[in-house]
Amino acid sequence: MTVIKVFEKPKLSNPILIEGLPGVGNIGRVAVGYMIDELKAKKFAQLYSEHFFPFVMLHDENMIHLLKNELFYYKAKKKGERDIIFLVGDCQSLSPHGHYEVVEAVLDFVEKLGVKEIITVGGLATGEIEEKPSVYGAVTHTELIKRFKNTEVKFTAGEKVGYIVGASGLFLGLGKERGMKGVCLLGETSGFPIVTDPKAAETVLENLTKVLNLKIDMSELEAKVSEMEKFIKKVENLQKKAIMQITKDESAPVSGKEQLRYIG
Amino acid sequence: MTVIKVFEKPKLSNPILIEGLPGVGNIGRVAVGYMIDELKAKKFAQLYSEHFFPFVMLHDENMIHLLKNELFYYKAKKKGERDIIFLVGDCQSLSPHGHYEVVEAVLDFVEKLGVKEIITVGGLATGEIEEKPSVYGAVTHTELIKRFKNTEVKFTAGEKVGYIVGASGLFLGLGKERGMKGVCLLGETSGFPIVTDPKAAETVLENLTKVLNLKIDMSELEAKVSEMEKFIKKVENLQKKAIMQITKDESAPVSGKEQLRYIG
Amino acid sequence: MTVIKVFEKPKLSNPILIEGLPGVGNIGRVAVGYMIDELKAKKFAQLYSEHFFPFVMLHDENMIHLLKNELFYYKAKKKGERDIIFLVGDCQSLSPHGHYEVVEAVLDFVEKLGVKEIITVGGLATGEIEEKPSVYGAVTHTELIKRFKNTEVKFTAGEKVGYIVGASGLFLGLGKERGMKGVCLLGETSGFPIVTDPKAAETVLENLTKVLNLKIDMSELEAKVSEMEKFIKKVENLQKKAIMQITKDESAPVSGKEQLRYIG
Amino acid sequence: MTVIKVFEKPKLSNPILIEGLPGVGNIGRVAVGYMIDELKAKKFAQLYSEHFFPFVMLHDENMIHLLKNELFYYKAKKKGERDIIFLVGDCQSLSPHGHYEVVEAVLDFVEKLGVKEIITVGGLATGEIEEKPSVYGAVTHTELIKRFKNTEVKFTAGEKVGYIVGASGLFLGLGKERGMKGVCLLGETSGFPIVTDPKAAETVLENLTKVLNLKIDMSELEAKVSEMEKFIKKVENLQKKAIMQITKDESAPVSGKEQLRYIG
Repeated sequence: MTVIKVFEKPKLSNPILIEGLPGVGNIGRVAVGYMIDELKAKKFAQLYSEHFFPFVMLHDENMIHLLKNELFYYKAKKKGERDIIFLVGDCQSLSPHGHYEVVEAVLDFVEKLGVKEIITVGGLATGEIEEKPSVYGAVTHTELIKRFKNTEVKFTAGEKVGYIVGASGLFLGLGKERGMKGVCLLGETSGFPIVTDPKAAETVLENLTKVLNLKIDMSELEAKVSEMEKFIKKVENLQKKAIMQITKDESAPVSGKEQLRYIG
Repeated sequence: MTVIKVFEKPKLSNPILIEGLPGVGNIGRVAVGYMIDELKAKKFAQLYSEHFFPFVMLHDENMIHLLKNELFYYKAKKKGERDIIFLVGDCQSLSPHGHYEVVEAVLDFVEKLGVKEIITVGGLATGEIEEKPSVYGAVTHTELIKRFKNTEVKFTAGEKVGYIVGASGLFLGLGKERGMKGVCLLGETSGFPIVTDPKAAETVLENLTKVLNLKIDMSELEAKVSEMEKFIKKVENLQKKAIMQITKDESAPVSGKEQLRYIG
Repeated sequence: MTVIKVFEKPKLSNPILIEGLPGVGNIGRVAVGYMIDELKAKKFAQLYSEHFFPFVMLHDENMIHLLKNELFYYKAKKKGERDIIFLVGDCQSLSPHGHYEVVEAVLDFVEKLGVKEIITVGGLATGEIEEKPSVYGAVTHTELIKRFKNTEVKFTAGEKVGYIVGASGLFLGLGKERGMKGVCLLGETSGFPIVTDPKAAETVLENLTKVLNLKIDMSELEAKVSEMEKFIKKVENLQKKAIMQITKDESAPVSGKEQLRYIG
Repeated sequence: MTVIKVFEKPKLSNPILIEGLPGVGNIGRVAVGYMIDELKAKKFAQLYSEHFFPFVMLHDENMIHLLKNELFYYKAKKKGERDIIFLVGDCQSLSPHGHYEVVEAVLDFVEKLGVKEIITVGGLATGEIEEKPSVYGAVTHTELIKRFKNTEVKFTAGEKVGYIVGASGLFLGLGKERGMKGVCLLGETSGFPIVTDPKAAETVLENLTKVLNLKIDMSELEAKVSEMEKFIKKVENLQKKAIMQITKDESAPVSGKEQLRYIG
């Protein structure tokens, strides 16, 4: 059960999908979230899934919030720009097979909107704090690399890391099976859990906007990232606590040592 | 596989769903269970699910009892009252995705009966024994808060806790996606596992009946809660033991330390 | 995916289903297996399921054997006897929801063959070696107890144990939902894992044959139980080893302490 | 969700399926992989599944690679040869029920291509380094053994090992249910995790080609195995790392001790 709720059916011309769900360093989440804000992209659909954590969040004093992924669109305004669909959200799937199911559901949906190209944004954990983080790229088709010739993206991700876990990887792997082409941009980050890395996000953003011919004012990035970070950290902390509460509720024989993960 | 068995199709006018499944402090279970008894609400449907624990309980000396959730209805008898559907039961889902599936199945069912509003009842674990437990509220729509102006419900749940796990949260989150409106009432309780908290249940009940314009005799609450508690504790203990027996039956390599949880 | 393969469609008159799958002390498995042998009951269907362990067994020197449950029938030969369907097999489900799915699949099948009554056979773990094991009973309907008045079955199972895990419980709980009536016979046994208890099986068998008006020669029970035991122990050991091999094959980060169970 | 993508529909005459997916010692993977290379078998279909690990791999510097199983065919060229379908791939299923689902999906597919016979290739872990590894066989039907009379395959696998886990076992067990006949060839190997055993693979290969009347140049085996090994080890290492990253991404309460497996 993965449900996509559509508010508006935008007419888009050869749109590119840009994915930025939570992950290592939350680089995708903050970079793509900032683009959405700055471009005033419009929310037109959202999805929830039985593969997400089984809880709702509380916002502000008392507002209930179901865990969601959200789709926004941006229509090209200037020459050189192109139509874009953005995917951001609160979380990724809890179970391994859920990753496949949610990504396939989104691909089914955006394919009908004409998407033939995808850029996913993630983090590449180095275990060290990077003074000047690099951006590494990986592709479904070699021909895509030349579009990035004016950027600083290093297409040597394969030397740095052997795999891409979750949505950022599967959107490209499963998209390719449908004839879609795609690039993954990975910002170098320490990879310490629950650390949002705004510097890496900024570097990714600079390269991403360059290849998309977009002008984006970066001056509010730091402030906005710090604002987003609060929310993202909250989700992460809640997921941890929720695991523990679920465990208790279900009366499992849990001791300090056997605290178990919640796996679908 | 979640099966709803219907005994009677009640004709209800704008009914509100009130959920009280087992959870933290079992506040929902005992508060809603007491309302059902006192109002002589009528059972009209029940459900079981592959997402529940794979065992049956033994009642009394020898009666076999499948784990179930049950639906009761109450038709308004006086001016100011309204029709109500109550949901109580033995347990919630064992697996994360099961929570979504069971809640969606119930929502599909009650939507057809005209439900547009929901109140869920749960506990808010404070880690401390509360002399005078408060009731905190969370909502799907801000406009609902004003209905509680004559109650002591504090709509600052979001400051106390960041999330609501399981049915009490998902009924509201998933219900909102269908255009339903809802409130969650959380009674402050210690949150120690397997402790039913009648005092917190009573406080929730007082506020719940006030907002529903119901008069309920509270004099038997303590006795009935203590009676219900026996049953609820039994289910909880059985779930723990069942996990261990299932583990043994399946010949898993279990030592004292590796006792594992049973996850769907 | 639970597949039932039918070899023959027997015409049966008001047949009773008798279930004896592996479980505590393997009492059901050996008692029902012995009845099948002695009554020369005929195999007419078998089932396998994705909910069983993902391996095949090797029999004798080189024969491959898929894990299965098997159905046999016996047609009444004398006055006082009745038609019987027996269910035995190599294993029960690996995952909690699998128990529900496999039991429902069997109930769908035997319902069409006219089954309205069920007896399930299991073990009741006491933690002690019983010199003279008792047989405890539990029922879906109180009226069934009187049929056992000439047996030694004690219908006080509920005082001894609070629940029945797996097939022996769910066949009755889920069967009752379809209007079927049933009894569970639980032989007292130590409950030590991987110990088949022939004495408890014999006691159950004596009571079971009495209530079914069947004459069964018990003289070969000990020999046959010891033969069956070899096979049952093999399955149990294989399940343990399989878990470990699966774990290794999937290259999971397993140390001695974190050896994890394989849960569907 | 297991998707088979077909590039070409070969017309085959009574083809035999030969399976060599990763497993103990990766014997099947390297033996069957080498046959495919040497026979210049043609890839005609591939499959991916939600039951595989939720990540993509990076090849070379920057190419994204979805985890897959692949099907190749070989048409008989000389008298005595027969048409063959080969199944190899990156991985097996992550979850127990996934093994059943993926194997059934492949069987559905190859049954339509006329497959009535299957040979699966795996490893038999002895815990010791074998100077001269033997090949053990197991069968679905005794009559198949005589075909191997001119080989060194010992049909006493049942004395050495009690079960065959995963695809190599289930293809035969589930295939038999469809009336297919099959043999499993198990090369003796130490069974140390993540050690590809080329010597055992060679011994299996010698026997396999003999029974198939195929001439295969073995001179490049060592070089090719060492090449394949790099890739296979990479997948294995990635699966380990992926488990850890997934765990981190999902913000699970993981300490060194509680590193948990990822179970579907």
